[in-house]
Amino acid sequence: MKPTNDIFLRALLRQPTEYTPIWLMRQAGRYLPEYNATRRRAGSFLALAKSPDLATEVTLQPVDRYPLDAAILFSDILTVPDAMGLGLYFVEGEGPKFERPIRSESDVAALAAPDPELSLSYVTDAVRSIRKALGNRIPLIGFSGSPWTLACYMVEGGGSDDFRLVKTMLYTRPDLMHRLLAVNVRAVTDYLNAQIRAGAQAVMIFDTWGGALSDAAYRAFSLPAMAEVVRGLDRDHDGERVPCILFTKGGGLWLEDIADTGCDAVGVDWTVDLARARQRIGARCALQGNLDPMVLLAGVEATRTEATRVLDSFGSPKRADGGIDGHVFNLGHGISQFTDPAVVDALVETVHTHSRRLRT
Amino acid sequence: MKPTNDIFLRALLRQPTEYTPIWLMRQAGRYLPEYNATRRRAGSFLALAKSPDLATEVTLQPVDRYPLDAAILFSDILTVPDAMGLGLYFVEGEGPKFERPIRSESDVAALAAPDPELSLSYVTDAVRSIRKALGNRIPLIGFSGSPWTLACYMVEGGGSDDFRLVKTMLYTRPDLMHRLLAVNVRAVTDYLNAQIRAGAQAVMIFDTWGGALSDAAYRAFSLPAMAEVVRGLDRDHDGERVPCILFTKGGGLWLEDIADTGCDAVGVDWTVDLARARQRIGARCALQGNLDPMVLLAGVEATRTEATRVLDSFGSPKRADGGIDGHVFNLGHGISQFTDPAVVDALVETVHTHSRRLRT
Repeated sequence: MKPTNDIFLRALLRQPTEYTPIWLMRQAGRYLPEYNATRRRAGSFLALAKSPDLATEVTLQPVDRYPLDAAILFSDILTVPDAMGLGLYFVEGEGPKFERPIRSESDVAALAAPDPELSLSYVTDAVRSIRKALGNRIPLIGFSGSPWTLACYMVEGGGSDDFRLVKTMLYTRPDLMHRLLAVNVRAVTDYLNAQIRAGAQAVMIFDTWGGALSDAAYRAFSLPAMAEVVRGLDRDHDGERVPCILFTKGGGLWLEDIADTGCDAVGVDWTVDLARARQRIGARCALQGNLDPMVLLAGVEATRTEATRVLDSFGSPKRADGGIDGHVFNLGHGISQFTDPAVVDALVETVHTHSRRLRT
Repeated sequence: MKPTNDIFLRALLRQPTEYTPIWLMRQAGRYLPEYNATRRRAGSFLALAKSPDLATEVTLQPVDRYPLDAAILFSDILTVPDAMGLGLYFVEGEGPKFERPIRSESDVAALAAPDPELSLSYVTDAVRSIRKALGNRIPLIGFSGSPWTLACYMVEGGGSDDFRLVKTMLYTRPDLMHRLLAVNVRAVTDYLNAQIRAGAQAVMIFDTWGGALSDAAYRAFSLPAMAEVVRGLDRDHDGERVPCILFTKGGGLWLEDIADTGCDAVGVDWTVDLARARQRIGARCALQGNLDPMVLLAGVEATRTEATRVLDSFGSPKRADGGIDGHVFNLGHGISQFTDPAVVDALVETVHTHSRRLRT
């Protein structure tokens, strides 16, 4: 069943829309006092992510507060390697870590794609619970990390500045990296399809670290792995099209190649000029982005100015030939914890109002 | 007087060369045991950078060890704000910091471009001393941080993950950011011209953080500030052309705009495909780059393979119309401290040998 407000889905599928839909990466997050209250009750970030009830609660918080056009499942991209048995844990102020990182040939050989219905049932339960709580108001987005981005965390054992270990594996043992990515492709595909079966109405693949790769390595490793996931997705589910968004942070040079995967939309960060991105791939894919989240820290006036600039850069979705190009407004990365929630009100209002004006 | 080996200068000026010249960003650095020995003797990084004798010693170390085609002044990009009175210091494991960061209107009003002959004489003395020690073997490169990159450190008071403070200033007070950049333009121009007068035979501007900006902000702030520096450079010094290289890390989308500044060469990181970069700007500028420094950690074989790939991607400098395009081999960022010095031998050898082959 289509949600009452399906403008986000229509924009992704390049159908006519009355205004530009908006949602925000990490919209359920630490800038919201109600999120922090739930997080404190949960005791830890992982306890929050692993409780379907609490994940539902925080997923709904931003969409109850703001007239956003999509909700996104509250979860973490590292649930998949955690379900593979790597032992995810968080160190305060240091980010995610794995107890058992993947470093050797035997580590890779021992890896298997988890059955999401078994070891990630807390996620599919959350998707079902969120859909129920949303009551068909707006669509729900499911998501996963990209195979390469998951591999970065799995090999490094956490975040990294230089990706020394994972790149050393890639360059010394490309065969091993391809085997690791093959497991991740299977795992991410199964995971996203389980989310779709549970009720996710669109899915997004976060290739947060694709932009750390060289041009040649991106084309040989991250991109083909994502293309395989896209091909394996159940994008026609129960008679509804489930659009898929691919986002490689720092991937502005590869937009045509990302569009070639067959995804429905390409996420772009703020280094990309939307007008040129639209010229390059707008006839094939919708675009999603791309305000710098730091703009929001500069207050209401700067946020209105810069959001208007982003909308004007894309322009009216109507092409000269009468066709429609798609734009979903978003940030170019997750919203900062230092954001004033009142500024988000102004942002959503500006995007809705100014984009209606652009269409007249 | 031209150096005996002037192939680096010829490549930058798009003149014929017998092979592709190579130097490495941060080639005098912690991967070399002889550097670490001098650094220990100096007591601290700053003491090393501020002693013309010791700076000469470490500048010569890599060019004595490897047949590199250029030397680069050993210094730090933060000498300029230090000379402005911001109080540069280093915290072990945390990188550079400033005692007195620039946060307010009155902080900016109090800033002035330093006279490099007075407060940065340890740098010009080092340039003269290095030129003497090099004995005209190979050219010496001088350098500076870009006005925007210096502003990042000056406002943040050190490194940053999100550039929260400097971007907040940029978006709330663009007038103040322009004033700060105007001081930095003056300071960087004077500093590079002082290095040229002291004997630098090429100069490079490191825009390490330009790629953190949005497309619109890059065009409004970092790019015009660099263009103004380029216009102010004394590039015809004592009858010799002093080429200027601009390097915006993460700036692959803006190559045409960087070339428009009138620089002689554009540095590119490893996300850029050199063949396409050459198509885009090769007729106007030389290109410098772009091996991922992490490749070197994968050993000799991987380094030979990937260096060959970079050279092949650029191809023979001779164009179909008989003209010459320029390529200087480099890494896409500074060499890692974890690099095995023996791998650098193999890299230099591969670049020299394979690029000769490409020309036949």
